[in-house]
Amino acid sequence: MLKLFEYNWQVRRDWFDWCETVSEEELLKQRTGGMGSILPTLYHVVAVEYGWICGGIQEKAINIPQFKEVASLQKIKDLSDRCHEELAPFVYDWNDSLEDRIMIDITDEGEREPHKFGEVMRHVIAHEIHHIGQLSIWSREIGKKPVTANLIGRGLFDN
Amino acid sequence: MLKLFEYNWQVRRDWFDWCETVSEEELLKQRTGGMGSILPTLYHVVAVEYGWICGGIQEKAINIPQFKEVASLQKIKDLSDRCHEELAPFVYDWNDSLEDRIMIDITDEGEREPHKFGEVMRHVIAHEIHHIGQLSIWSREIGKKPVTANLIGRGLFDN
Repeated sequence: MLKLFEYNWQVRRDWFDWCETVSEEELLKQRTGGMGSILPTLYHVVAVEYGWICGGIQEKAINIPQFKEVASLQKIKDLSDRCHEELAPFVYDWNDSLEDRIMIDITDEGEREPHKFGEVMRHVIAHEIHHIGQLSIWSREIGKKPVTANLIGRGLFDN
Repeated sequence: MLKLFEYNWQVRRDWFDWCETVSEEELLKQRTGGMGSILPTLYHVVAVEYGWICGGIQEKAINIPQFKEVASLQKIKDLSDRCHEELAPFVYDWNDSLEDRIMIDITDEGEREPHKFGEVMRHVIAHEIHHIGQLSIWSREIGKKPVTANLIGRGLFDN
């Protein structure tokens, strides 16, 4: 479980670095599909990971700013760092005994939906990889090479 | 581990169903980024999963047809079914004792690269999710709703 989170965090950092090489106009330009733009996509993966792990599973009272409050690369990197600091200990402490514990999600329609912790954690993993795949298309549209998505060979399993 | 493979297999089936609603011309049209087209992307995720698990980890003598030999939706679905039948037992039998076993990959440059089985399995998982994210963008370009990428709520954890 941890390795896939570490993969996502590495790839996210690489995309933040990639963003440094692109104009803010391109980062905010409306595009087809997904969240419709690059910075809102990175904001979205940060917010969703934080929301599920700290707000959902850990039941903390969390405050996620709206996108318009953090609509710059630096502010989203800062948000990502703050959220990471708060949620990473839970991911590092993950163990199989947590798999079947239940959290209750309140849907937008006010329904109570139970989810196993293990399901939520894998949802968060797949969610980020999916959206990063979308960024890779938009990167080519801009004429830039995307960040590599390869998990293999990036040193995650060297220890 | 298994749940994320099952997620990928469900989503892949959903994309095959989605493909039934789209003309072959759209499925083969050249697009920007990724593998450059929809059917070649689905072929690629099938071939990569099969190559790593059956050819790489299990060291079977495998034969993966070239894309041009299976360049239709039905043939790629058949290929996916055949590969799945052969590789699924290994995924269902996966256990933690396999994590650190080593396979040797021969790179395109002829170099021998060792990889832990656990790294290969997670690479295969992330690889498919990434490419499926790309399909979701192309789907919107065609004007069609993409297959849902949500892992949560699809019943994978009901048992």
